[in-house]
Amino acid sequence: MSERSETEQEAMAATYAALVDHGYAGLTIQTIADEFPKSKSLLYYHYDDKDAILREFLSYLVEEFRADFDIDDGDDPRETLDSLLDGILPRDIDPDRRAFRVALLELLARAAHDDSYADSLSDLHAAIHDRIAAVIDAGVESGAFHAVDPDDTATALVALASGGMLWGVTTDPSVATRTRAVLDAYLDAELYR
Amino acid sequence: MSERSETEQEAMAATYAALVDHGYAGLTIQTIADEFPKSKSLLYYHYDDKDAILREFLSYLVEEFRADFDIDDGDDPRETLDSLLDGILPRDIDPDRRAFRVALLELLARAAHDDSYADSLSDLHAAIHDRIAAVIDAGVESGAFHAVDPDDTATALVALASGGMLWGVTTDPSVATRTRAVLDAYLDAELYR
Repeated sequence: MSERSETEQEAMAATYAALVDHGYAGLTIQTIADEFPKSKSLLYYHYDDKDAILREFLSYLVEEFRADFDIDDGDDPRETLDSLLDGILPRDIDPDRRAFRVALLELLARAAHDDSYADSLSDLHAAIHDRIAAVIDAGVESGAFHAVDPDDTATALVALASGGMLWGVTTDPSVATRTRAVLDAYLDAELYR
Repeated sequence: MSERSETEQEAMAATYAALVDHGYAGLTIQTIADEFPKSKSLLYYHYDDKDAILREFLSYLVEEFRADFDIDDGDDPRETLDSLLDGILPRDIDPDRRAFRVALLELLARAAHDDSYADSLSDLHAAIHDRIAAVIDAGVESGAFHAVDPDDTATALVALASGGMLWGVTTDPSVATRTRAVLDAYLDAELYR
C-alpha cells in the first residue's frame, strides 16, 4: 500500500517507538535515531528536523487509513469497523497504546497553535472519518448494517471513540472502558443487523 | 453556591482569563495577576505557585458542576442538559471559548504525566458525568425524557461532546459543528419525548 522506501518505513516505525517512549515533549532526532536500525546520518539526509519527521509520520498515518475497502476482496465491514474503532479507543489500553495516544493529544494541543500541524491532523481526522464512513456505506450496501447515514454515523463514532480516549488516557482508565462498552452497545442496537 | 471569598472568586476569574489569553504554556502568576483586580501579593498569600492556583481552579470548576438539580425549583431538564453540553461543545465556538478548551486539553495532556492534575481532572470528568446523569434521571422521572439508562447515556453524551471538542478546537472547526448537530439529532431521536 505504501510507496515508501524501506528506510522511510523504518524511520516511521522509529518515530512511533520514540513517541511511545518519550512522548511529544521528549521527542528529538536523537530519541528517534535510538530506535532507528540504520545510521543517524540517514535520518538527517531524509528529514530536516524533528518537525519534518513528525509531519511525515502524520502523513504516514493518513495513508494507512486511505487504504481501499473492498467486500469482494473478503473485507468484512463489521470486523473492519471494529478494528478501526480499536485504532482510536481499544478495549484494552496497554501502556504503549496509552503512551502513543497521549503523544497524539500533545500533538493535537500543539496543532491549536501551529497551522502546519493543524493541517496534518485535519487530514488525519478526515482520513479516519472517511474510512469509517466508507466501511459503513459498504456494510449498508451489503445488508450487514441497517440503512443509516454513513457520514453522520461516522461523525458520531469518531467523536464517541475520541472523547472516551481523551479522558481515558489522561485521567481515569475506566472512562475508556465504559465508553467503549457504550459504543459497542450502540453498534449492536443501531447498526448491526 | 460557592463558599469562596470574594478574593478567591476573583482569583478564579483571573485564572480563567489568563488561560484564555495565554494558554496553559503561557500561564504564570504574573499573567494571572494581570487579570486580577487586587494586588499581586494577595495572590501569593492565597496560593503557593501557579500549579496551586490551577488545581484550585479545577476544584472550582468541579463545584460549579456539583450544583443540585431540582425540577421543583423550576429547573427544566431539557434546557439544563442543553446548557451542560454547551459547556463542553458549544454550537458556536468563539475565540475565547476555543482558547479555554485548548488550555483544558493542554491540562489533560499534562495530567497524563502528573498525578496531581490527573486526580483533579478525574474529579472534573466525574462531576460533569454525574451532573448530566442526574439531569437525565430527573427528565426520565418527570416524563420529559424516554426511559434511558442515565449513566450509559451520560457516558455517551460526555464522550461525543468531548470528542467533537477535541478535534474541533485543534484542527477543523467544522468537526465541532457537525458533531454537535449529530448529538442534537441523537437527543431528538433517543431522549426527548
